[in-house]
Amino acid sequence: MLIVMSKGATPEQTQAVITEIEKRGYTARPIPGGERVSIGVLYNQGPVDASPFLGMSGVKDAIPITRPYKLVSREFKAEDTVIQVGPVSIGNGNLTLIAGPCAIESKEQALTIAAHVQKAGAHIFRGGAFKPRTSPYSFQGLGREGLEILRMVRETTGMPVITEVMDDETFDLVEAYADIIQIGTRNMQNFSLLRRAGKASKPVMLKRGMAATIEEWLMAAEYILEGGNPSVILCERGVRTFVNHSRNTLDLSSIPVIRKESHLPIIIDPSHAAGRRDQVIPLSRAAVAAEAHGLMVEVHHEPDKALSDGTQSLYPDQFVTLCGQVRGIYDMLNKK
Amino acid sequence: MLIVMSKGATPEQTQAVITEIEKRGYTARPIPGGERVSIGVLYNQGPVDASPFLGMSGVKDAIPITRPYKLVSREFKAEDTVIQVGPVSIGNGNLTLIAGPCAIESKEQALTIAAHVQKAGAHIFRGGAFKPRTSPYSFQGLGREGLEILRMVRETTGMPVITEVMDDETFDLVEAYADIIQIGTRNMQNFSLLRRAGKASKPVMLKRGMAATIEEWLMAAEYILEGGNPSVILCERGVRTFVNHSRNTLDLSSIPVIRKESHLPIIIDPSHAAGRRDQVIPLSRAAVAAEAHGLMVEVHHEPDKALSDGTQSLYPDQFVTLCGQVRGIYDMLNKK
Amino acid sequence: MLIVMSKGATPEQTQAVITEIEKRGYTARPIPGGERVSIGVLYNQGPVDASPFLGMSGVKDAIPITRPYKLVSREFKAEDTVIQVGPVSIGNGNLTLIAGPCAIESKEQALTIAAHVQKAGAHIFRGGAFKPRTSPYSFQGLGREGLEILRMVRETTGMPVITEVMDDETFDLVEAYADIIQIGTRNMQNFSLLRRAGKASKPVMLKRGMAATIEEWLMAAEYILEGGNPSVILCERGVRTFVNHSRNTLDLSSIPVIRKESHLPIIIDPSHAAGRRDQVIPLSRAAVAAEAHGLMVEVHHEPDKALSDGTQSLYPDQFVTLCGQVRGIYDMLNKK
Amino acid sequence: MLIVMSKGATPEQTQAVITEIEKRGYTARPIPGGERVSIGVLYNQGPVDASPFLGMSGVKDAIPITRPYKLVSREFKAEDTVIQVGPVSIGNGNLTLIAGPCAIESKEQALTIAAHVQKAGAHIFRGGAFKPRTSPYSFQGLGREGLEILRMVRETTGMPVITEVMDDETFDLVEAYADIIQIGTRNMQNFSLLRRAGKASKPVMLKRGMAATIEEWLMAAEYILEGGNPSVILCERGVRTFVNHSRNTLDLSSIPVIRKESHLPIIIDPSHAAGRRDQVIPLSRAAVAAEAHGLMVEVHHEPDKALSDGTQSLYPDQFVTLCGQVRGIYDMLNKK
Repeated sequence: MLIVMSKGATPEQTQAVITEIEKRGYTARPIPGGERVSIGVLYNQGPVDASPFLGMSGVKDAIPITRPYKLVSREFKAEDTVIQVGPVSIGNGNLTLIAGPCAIESKEQALTIAAHVQKAGAHIFRGGAFKPRTSPYSFQGLGREGLEILRMVRETTGMPVITEVMDDETFDLVEAYADIIQIGTRNMQNFSLLRRAGKASKPVMLKRGMAATIEEWLMAAEYILEGGNPSVILCERGVRTFVNHSRNTLDLSSIPVIRKESHLPIIIDPSHAAGRRDQVIPLSRAAVAAEAHGLMVEVHHEPDKALSDGTQSLYPDQFVTLCGQVRGIYDMLNKK
Repeated sequence: MLIVMSKGATPEQTQAVITEIEKRGYTARPIPGGERVSIGVLYNQGPVDASPFLGMSGVKDAIPITRPYKLVSREFKAEDTVIQVGPVSIGNGNLTLIAGPCAIESKEQALTIAAHVQKAGAHIFRGGAFKPRTSPYSFQGLGREGLEILRMVRETTGMPVITEVMDDETFDLVEAYADIIQIGTRNMQNFSLLRRAGKASKPVMLKRGMAATIEEWLMAAEYILEGGNPSVILCERGVRTFVNHSRNTLDLSSIPVIRKESHLPIIIDPSHAAGRRDQVIPLSRAAVAAEAHGLMVEVHHEPDKALSDGTQSLYPDQFVTLCGQVRGIYDMLNKK
Repeated sequence: MLIVMSKGATPEQTQAVITEIEKRGYTARPIPGGERVSIGVLYNQGPVDASPFLGMSGVKDAIPITRPYKLVSREFKAEDTVIQVGPVSIGNGNLTLIAGPCAIESKEQALTIAAHVQKAGAHIFRGGAFKPRTSPYSFQGLGREGLEILRMVRETTGMPVITEVMDDETFDLVEAYADIIQIGTRNMQNFSLLRRAGKASKPVMLKRGMAATIEEWLMAAEYILEGGNPSVILCERGVRTFVNHSRNTLDLSSIPVIRKESHLPIIIDPSHAAGRRDQVIPLSRAAVAAEAHGLMVEVHHEPDKALSDGTQSLYPDQFVTLCGQVRGIYDMLNKK
Repeated sequence: MLIVMSKGATPEQTQAVITEIEKRGYTARPIPGGERVSIGVLYNQGPVDASPFLGMSGVKDAIPITRPYKLVSREFKAEDTVIQVGPVSIGNGNLTLIAGPCAIESKEQALTIAAHVQKAGAHIFRGGAFKPRTSPYSFQGLGREGLEILRMVRETTGMPVITEVMDDETFDLVEAYADIIQIGTRNMQNFSLLRRAGKASKPVMLKRGMAATIEEWLMAAEYILEGGNPSVILCERGVRTFVNHSRNTLDLSSIPVIRKESHLPIIIDPSHAAGRRDQVIPLSRAAVAAEAHGLMVEVHHEPDKALSDGTQSLYPDQFVTLCGQVRGIYDMLNKK
């Protein structure tokens, strides 16, 4: 249930409602709003009786929540969440472009690619330092050295950086270096990691699991918000199906559904969806046309030599083409 | 194998190659081209030896075909196939908009919707007269009466009409009335129907089966071309996956794959993919941004009263919005 | 709704109920039962009011039907349907074994394999005369000649034969030769073919579509029963999923669900599910352990030379092993 | 590559081969065998040249490994791995039955169910102390208190216990209490957890991810073996598909594939596959008939009051039925 306070409600009135909620054994969670305060009721088993609250001073309304997810839902918070990362705002009506290599391989590689993508119009640099790999014998990322290179990229270019965290053990380290912390598709329901992300001081990008329903994905985000971190970016990267002409099947209908159900921004990763370079640009255009808040794209200046995911990485000049086309679609739709 | 004749090859030289192909027990299929004739070799078991042909007069080259599909492939025919339907060209660089109700219900219903969609910018009118229904107890379509209404729509509006054929028995009838004959998703591998469609005098729209790979889909189209009908339009309408927030999962990566593999045009049906009205407009924009040759959309002026698929039908004013947005994206991408 | 007559109800009382049903615009369908007659009410839109019927003489009860399928449901008919095919009963508590090659290739091939499988314990011989093939260039079956060979197999061995029908055009021909008419997975929702099968004088085996839900499958069977043919055998042959170590994923939970929802017998085809010889025996054992009414298995004495599906065909001695193992499981579960 | 030493090879000769392998920058991994030692070569990039090893004293053969997984493959180790857990052997030709509630709820609940399942024939007790839950608001398990109850069950009944570990943080704790450590489906590719499991002193049961291919599953097991723990039990629990009559689709063809590709034992969990009580017994019979090494089944004496997964838990008397039937099938197949 969501208890909505009147515009002129006093802090004391709000506190009285919180006390009343907690007296019943529930958890009260005040929700920041523009004009008025709302208070979410969490951890109830079954429906909550509204009548005791409706009679309290300063209470305007009590709205039952029909979804299993709460803090992430539009019912709890009607306005879009905007996430500020250094100079970049995500979810506020701009189109956010994130680009870079799959894995950080060296200082030269990272700085070369960063220069390319920044010039083309990227706002945020991506690159893996800790890599989740199907095989224990594959390149596992440069680790701390990769994080140091990311810091260098930020210092050199001014772009914020996003990189993946794989476990609790290295979370502090990643948190210290990253501007956005990525939780990968294989960890979408790693609930310990989600709880840790709920305590993080940085925004979190939560990739959809490859067999996750929208409800499971939003429930995973709910773990992070429930833990205290309101800054979650959702990232659709395709789901696993029988289809064999792409590595995964990009589910663009998730964009209108997420935008309707949740206030959190949604970013599309066409590179991991396709797994093939020649589908990345068309899928990027499609994602922006379906009103994604942004894109995350793999770019490499020498994809044939890439230590991971080379076949899906764009060449720098392809990324220039992509930026021009998606910018055109975005501006057309937003009459800019 | 494809045998490419020289520019100046004489009809006699071409005939000699055909005779040589048939002498070996294969089938020869001349392929129309702008500047030169090519001759496809069909029904070979295993690879064909090129050397006897390379030595013949007028033969420029012999190209092995690496795909299981042949006549539908870019390897056989490099230029896009353009399909002319009355005043409408499909696949020639325009965006083709097909719209109308799921089922023809009455003269009034059809003419009302036709007037709406034509005004909004539709080029072709759709409407089912014979309806494939999961239940034998559901409304099965008006049959011949529905076809008569479609004729009336064409006469009144000038728009060509597309309608579905369900079996050999009613094929002649549907062929007599329709400007484009639709083969539905459940019949994609109804090989008898495909063979009959190969003899049809009208273009055929072949919907992708809900569990079909691209290869199976193109092989189904191959049946039609092999039968003698070169005018096939492919229609992606979503595939069946675990995803439960839409009825099917629209697979937009099929657009770049089809455009690369085949010369046939591809149309997207966002209505059956989504199964929900609120996803149709975003998916339509996405499809055009991914370079579909057109869209086929369900529109109904009273969707709550529709005899089938009401929940996914757009209201007429929503279709106006859709047309404006996809036109904008299309023109932007094509610098018009 | 199902109207259940008393044990001693007279034909006149039953007829009076039928007349009353039809007066309301519905269709009455008497259902044969051991001790009493029931009358199904079909083609109602929305619920049927029971009260007028409950007051009539000879009426014992009126039961609302909660499923979209009716004639195929346990609600309409509680006892298992037993299908008699020559000397073989399917669904009566025996284990029915159907075996033979994918396609009939020659008299010698068919008779050789028939002798093998009969000796091993098969009751019914399978073999395709008309073959649905993904490619128009693949072997399409021997057609009428194949049917003649099937007749010869029946005359020589005494085994009934099952073969696939692909279209209305050849239905009469197949019906004349086959003891059981098979409708293949790609035609599960070929509604015209289902209607024709509803008029057939022979039992029909209906394979599950590769992306069909149980409800869609039962609704397809409903078309056949509604058309007047009560003898339908359901055949599970795997569904299409992301799994890549077998051609399809055999869904054995369909057995308990079908047995609960419907009175029709269910047969498992492990050969098309697996697509690989080495999975056929384990899946056959599993199917019988899950209480399938029978199996349909591909066997070939020279699988490397088979014109279709050789890689999934068992060698004759493997089929001997299979029969022994499944017989053992069946007898153990049925305490024989 | 696998270097196979002769029967009479000396430890010095084996050591010399190891030294030679490591000189080339690879990792040498001696594999225990009955009659002779083999040495696996790991971490090679690309193929390894066999010739330097073939010339060394005591070397019998050098076998290239064709699979991406190595230590888990039959190519590396031909004999079945048998895992000893207290008095229970898994994978040695017995049928292992694991049963208990989804979650440990109280001492009384656990002891009651343990007594039931032991009497029915279960060898190992299952019960969750740390529960992965889709919602942060659901019951998350009793934690350490649950582990204490599991210890009590072991002390009271003598049955070994299996329980799930969710993260590195609680791994030591779970390892101290559990006889088998379970890694759940959502953590199958939690690579940090897999690495920790590779250091564990207890056997690990690795559940298949709900969208994992067999190759990905075996690669996840490879992480554990590569880390030094050879005792891994694989557990198939269904994959996610479009099918909606069961929660997941149980993929029994994984049994023959795993038995062919790997030496590790495979257990089937029909409860999570079905998600519905009425499918559990048929699927259990099917699993044993397909030659699973064992079953893991949820049982609850009061499923309607269960704090999680009540709808799929068997009643104790149903588990008695199950044990009798699967035992019968197992004995019949193994001629006992």
